[in-house]
Amino acid sequence: MKIYTIKDIARKAGVSVTTVSRVLNKRPDVNQATREKVERVMAECRFVGNANARGLKQPDGDLIAIILRGRENPFLNSLAEAMLAHTHGLKASFLTEFVDEQADEFQAAVRLSHEKRVKGFIFVGGRIDERADVLQDMDAPMVFTTISAEKAAFPRAASVYIDDRAMGRAAMQTLLDAGHTRIAIFGGIRVGDDGFAKRYAGAMDALKDAGVPFDEERFVQTRFSMSGAYDTAQAFFSAKPDTTAVFAMSDTIAMGIIRALTDMGKSVPADVSVIGYDGIEMGKFFIPRLTTIEQPVDDIARESVQILMDMLEDNKPPRHIVVDAKLVTRESVR
Amino acid sequence: MKIYTIKDIARKAGVSVTTVSRVLNKRPDVNQATREKVERVMAECRFVGNANARGLKQPDGDLIAIILRGRENPFLNSLAEAMLAHTHGLKASFLTEFVDEQADEFQAAVRLSHEKRVKGFIFVGGRIDERADVLQDMDAPMVFTTISAEKAAFPRAASVYIDDRAMGRAAMQTLLDAGHTRIAIFGGIRVGDDGFAKRYAGAMDALKDAGVPFDEERFVQTRFSMSGAYDTAQAFFSAKPDTTAVFAMSDTIAMGIIRALTDMGKSVPADVSVIGYDGIEMGKFFIPRLTTIEQPVDDIARESVQILMDMLEDNKPPRHIVVDAKLVTRESVR
Repeated sequence: MKIYTIKDIARKAGVSVTTVSRVLNKRPDVNQATREKVERVMAECRFVGNANARGLKQPDGDLIAIILRGRENPFLNSLAEAMLAHTHGLKASFLTEFVDEQADEFQAAVRLSHEKRVKGFIFVGGRIDERADVLQDMDAPMVFTTISAEKAAFPRAASVYIDDRAMGRAAMQTLLDAGHTRIAIFGGIRVGDDGFAKRYAGAMDALKDAGVPFDEERFVQTRFSMSGAYDTAQAFFSAKPDTTAVFAMSDTIAMGIIRALTDMGKSVPADVSVIGYDGIEMGKFFIPRLTTIEQPVDDIARESVQILMDMLEDNKPPRHIVVDAKLVTRESVR
Repeated sequence: MKIYTIKDIARKAGVSVTTVSRVLNKRPDVNQATREKVERVMAECRFVGNANARGLKQPDGDLIAIILRGRENPFLNSLAEAMLAHTHGLKASFLTEFVDEQADEFQAAVRLSHEKRVKGFIFVGGRIDERADVLQDMDAPMVFTTISAEKAAFPRAASVYIDDRAMGRAAMQTLLDAGHTRIAIFGGIRVGDDGFAKRYAGAMDALKDAGVPFDEERFVQTRFSMSGAYDTAQAFFSAKPDTTAVFAMSDTIAMGIIRALTDMGKSVPADVSVIGYDGIEMGKFFIPRLTTIEQPVDDIARESVQILMDMLEDNKPPRHIVVDAKLVTRESVR
């Protein structure tokens, strides 16, 4: 088989050797059509393995870790996927790390910093609590997504999140507007003013404005998985069967609740209304389709990667960005 | 704040300095309890940022890429997630790369090889066709999952997959056993004897044995997404309303079909039975719960990582492993 040189590729593609080298090094200063032509010629010539290609200078980018708290969580998965879509062309390489919902993502960060020399972190989901103190001496930039890090004590912590208090209020208001008063809230344990606490506070704002009292026994703590929500919902609705509506702090939880209600012979939304949170793709196809609070996944992803790279490569200060979420009305509330 | 040295950590944890160093370097020769104790002490002392820790020798592992073909695909996501769970403690770092269902994952591999010096690949989903020829000169080990690479021309290609022909037969047999004869198949385009072609061939085996003819117009090519299957199903059932059962080549497709049927006023399984493929978590909670062919995600993930590391680190020859799938009977067929 003929071994092609970089000169052969340049000649076949009708470009300069410098341009081929730029394409190989994924430099931004090559226009898209030229890049594609060169890549096509390289593919046709099977240029990958030859010595010239291997001998070219290649960039050594930093490793960045995207750490997701919670497994099999479609919302976190879609966020990570969207983030990775925004990393193309960057010198840095992005690892994805999943930790259990009950595990310590900050210890995972410490471990990755040691093990893999990871130089920057994006935390997806979770919260900042005292466990995060182990990050205090890390000089790596970190971006917290879906939660605010404005009050965090770390020098290089940025964050991208939605206004959880406003959206918690919007979710509850949707149920109140539909005439419900015996409303349950399914969510995570509230710590300080983390995202769950804000969603809860927003829901309380709406109830207070409406003059509807909240029965504390209708706050249900659950894992953020379909199976966790399913089990919790079965127990809850056996104890509080007169509940007519639920604000679920994630779409995953909402689907677990709806499945449990269905198995208990109750129909959603005819017997019980359920509003979710996050706006995952599955919610558009679930039966019934989920009414929910939609987080702008692509905006959160793009901003997170941008802020991290600004901090890492240009030493810019951390920023805190609030992005717009919206209520999406479908079929699960009436 | 006190800066702790590695000696301090060793003393506090009651172990030798060598042991602390081993834990930091994530060496396997430390027992779990000791490792956890040392990590706890390091966390308490915020050992991360101090000069001693940074000065320690750290391993420089290779980069491996897990390339997923198809976005927002819960089955591929769960496979990647399971693979990552099996990479803990390895020196290598694992990147995850998503490419569009219609995109070229092999070009992505070539690009990663250039851009990030990626040294090994795990392909998740997709197929091996002529586009894969660009891999022929790569000396990186690669593992194809969910498809066979036994006939691939690459010297270092391994694979882990289920017996798609047998499972395609099992899926169709399930519909035949329920008394159906006007059966549709929704799947990807069949190329050579790739996974989709095998599933289709298995379905034909079952039909032939049963003496039930197959109406070619009831093979429906679709994208592997809920929205793709939804659109395709609406068009198909308008044209062939007498169809009483569907073999969907993924659970995602099955859910899109069921949603479309529901919107057309048809009930699953009362009016139409649907069997899926893959066995994703969501299938246990969907309404109706999906009857499906369950792929052993954790087995595929564990074997894939193991085979790749054996090839990469110990220069072992590629292996081809067939893992056991099973029929899971739930609610969507009757």
